[in-house]
Amino acid sequence: MNPSLLARLIDHTCLKPTADRAEIRTLCAEATRYRFRTVCVPPAHVAFAAELLAGVPVDVCTVIGFPLGYDTPAVKAFATAEAIRAGARENDMVLAIGALKAGRIGEVEEEIRRVVAAADGHTVKVILETAYLTDEEKVLACQASQRAGAHFVKTSTGFGPHGATEADVRLLRQAVGEAMLVKAAGGIRDLRTALRMIEAGADRIGTSSGPAIVEAMMGQEQ
Amino acid sequence: MNPSLLARLIDHTCLKPTADRAEIRTLCAEATRYRFRTVCVPPAHVAFAAELLAGVPVDVCTVIGFPLGYDTPAVKAFATAEAIRAGARENDMVLAIGALKAGRIGEVEEEIRRVVAAADGHTVKVILETAYLTDEEKVLACQASQRAGAHFVKTSTGFGPHGATEADVRLLRQAVGEAMLVKAAGGIRDLRTALRMIEAGADRIGTSSGPAIVEAMMGQEQ
Repeated sequence: MNPSLLARLIDHTCLKPTADRAEIRTLCAEATRYRFRTVCVPPAHVAFAAELLAGVPVDVCTVIGFPLGYDTPAVKAFATAEAIRAGARENDMVLAIGALKAGRIGEVEEEIRRVVAAADGHTVKVILETAYLTDEEKVLACQASQRAGAHFVKTSTGFGPHGATEADVRLLRQAVGEAMLVKAAGGIRDLRTALRMIEAGADRIGTSSGPAIVEAMMGQEQ
Repeated sequence: MNPSLLARLIDHTCLKPTADRAEIRTLCAEATRYRFRTVCVPPAHVAFAAELLAGVPVDVCTVIGFPLGYDTPAVKAFATAEAIRAGARENDMVLAIGALKAGRIGEVEEEIRRVVAAADGHTVKVILETAYLTDEEKVLACQASQRAGAHFVKTSTGFGPHGATEADVRLLRQAVGEAMLVKAAGGIRDLRTALRMIEAGADRIGTSSGPAIVEAMMGQEQ
């Protein structure tokens, strides 16, 4: 691992409800400088971010049904299609947490399938919000995500009772094997935590502390 | 004020991300018993709640762009139209907080206007999420909501840094005069707080403690 490789694992994230174009502009400038993998921005700012990043090898990621997961399947699919049209290349959707916990796995899977279809070949990450789930529910969610054709499972929104844990990353990694990728997000604010998540099996890190994390690794190398 | 009148001011609310049909069934049974004004449920549960409340004088309310407010105008309008089709009669939308704070009031107003149009004559409440706003921004939001044809302004989502305060209810009441209604929501868990909000000018109370609040008033009357 080196700073450049690490940056390519980071979704540079700003999902604060108060953020507007000034914050998105700063986020995109930082992503351009550090070559993060994506910027993760609210749906309302996808088009603006895509415009700022035209010609830069940094994709735009957004969130769907976020952060509570209880929009309808039709709304999640509509929001995904609109995000893709506006320039998003990755879509982090929150699954239907209530339906999962009630054992209606078929509905959870069908909803993910609709979002995957709306994403039209672009990346879909399924946010499990593990803080609300038993280990058994986490595994069922991973299996449903895989059957539905999603690309990633992701631990957390960053708005729930807790964020990513190493134990959850390991569990998700084990549940999906090599068939899917794993994103750790929520509460990852320093290099040490980021590296632990990668060690535990994370392929992608969602954080709003990307510059500090990459700078810390640069400092260690000198 | 008496318990029956108080109940007609309450949106009996369950917006937990983990809730499913069992919780919605309980909510609707309580609303039927106490004759609350509405049940306020996640979009994914509107059709189920409407079915349970068929023939009962309790409306279904739902939330749009909730709780962060940064879905696109098109997604908010689509979600509203779908909620109405599924049986919702009231729609509590979160406004574009970032745009408001950045001074793009015209966009905030236009978005509310689109939701009002999608609601097709049914009630629209605009959630300001006052915890993030200055008093000046709260007043600007009230004025934009009024110009856009919304019916209520509402203090909070219940998911922000704080819920309704008496000072905010007074400020909103003063800003909209008699032209709009005011809903207080977030952190209202007992009769005393509910009555204070009504005293401060609230026309509607959003709470998940409706039965306890009404029972407390019944107890006082005996």
